[in-house]
Amino acid sequence: MKIYEESTAPNARRVRMFLAEKGVSGLEYVHVGLKSGDNISSDFRKKNPLAKIPVLELDNNECISESMAICRYFEALNPENPLMGVSPFEQANIEMWQRRCEISFMNIVGMGFQHSTGYFSDRMNPIKEWGEECLKQAKVFMAFLNDHLKDHQYIAGEAFSVADITAFIAIEFARVVKVRIEDDHIHLLRWYQNIKSRPSAKA
Amino acid sequence: MKIYEESTAPNARRVRMFLAEKGVSGLEYVHVGLKSGDNISSDFRKKNPLAKIPVLELDNNECISESMAICRYFEALNPENPLMGVSPFEQANIEMWQRRCEISFMNIVGMGFQHSTGYFSDRMNPIKEWGEECLKQAKVFMAFLNDHLKDHQYIAGEAFSVADITAFIAIEFARVVKVRIEDDHIHLLRWYQNIKSRPSAKA
Repeated sequence: MKIYEESTAPNARRVRMFLAEKGVSGLEYVHVGLKSGDNISSDFRKKNPLAKIPVLELDNNECISESMAICRYFEALNPENPLMGVSPFEQANIEMWQRRCEISFMNIVGMGFQHSTGYFSDRMNPIKEWGEECLKQAKVFMAFLNDHLKDHQYIAGEAFSVADITAFIAIEFARVVKVRIEDDHIHLLRWYQNIKSRPSAKA
Repeated sequence: MKIYEESTAPNARRVRMFLAEKGVSGLEYVHVGLKSGDNISSDFRKKNPLAKIPVLELDNNECISESMAICRYFEALNPENPLMGVSPFEQANIEMWQRRCEISFMNIVGMGFQHSTGYFSDRMNPIKEWGEECLKQAKVFMAFLNDHLKDHQYIAGEAFSVADITAFIAIEFARVVKVRIEDDHIHLLRWYQNIKSRPSAKA
């Protein structure tokens, strides 16, 4: 199996961290340059018509894109050490938190980056005002996470899960646009240092 | 169990349609007015601090928000008639398509609505240029779906799935901002009429 990605891109990092936590190894990584536009080539669009990375290519050449779909594939293939929950309630609670951290935070940071910096202005229409609004919203979400973590060791409760991966990668990504954990967000800082100390954080 | 929602809101409709397809009934529905701001009240924020609907409240008072997390709860509780796949590949492929239809289409239509109409300008900062950009992107995605459906009966292949629900509800929602299926998108029209004929489409 192969993964097409750029190793420093946030969604690529989510999948790498997930696989490291699951103990899955032996995948071949193929570099796809985003700034150089490898991902918008017609060859790459055969693997993912939406031109996003990462893409998992199976040995039968079927392709799966979307980070969380790739993670779910490996979760279903290797149910031990679950990161997406086991009981119906655990599965739903982790999915709720993963989605909150993704939709209201990671994707917002991503749009904040793209629209405020114009990094991909060769292929999209950056709207500075929207980018700045996103960065404001990202800070509001970090305050919300800090409050939540006052009473919880991990994002989705008392066990590490894929929701922690999404939140951690989003916080690291936010530094690119100078959105950082505030000094008085002590619960978020405690959680961040804890996640950062896991070997998977360097995957 | 109770579901807090506004029955015409797109995410509420996704959950209603999913439950109808699964044959789950007997839930109590509690109306939460969005325009009137019931969802941003302090009482409702105890159920979902992000103030979004729908919210599923279990009999033990635990709350699950995020439509796809609610759907996953019922999928795990009632595995018969699967809408999220069974094999690892099916699960991943359906999740990929559900996410494509949600992130690149339904959420884009939602932002297009909020930012171009200013419907929630009492509680957010609408940016007209971003709203208009979103409506353009929604049209591009509908053309992509039309191409995809040329060779597939349903969004994620040959079986109806939660990805069809997301795409169908997004298309119906898009009509509010006058984004409609083009007459020459014959594959998308065929698929839309097929989904619309299911009893669950009226749930």
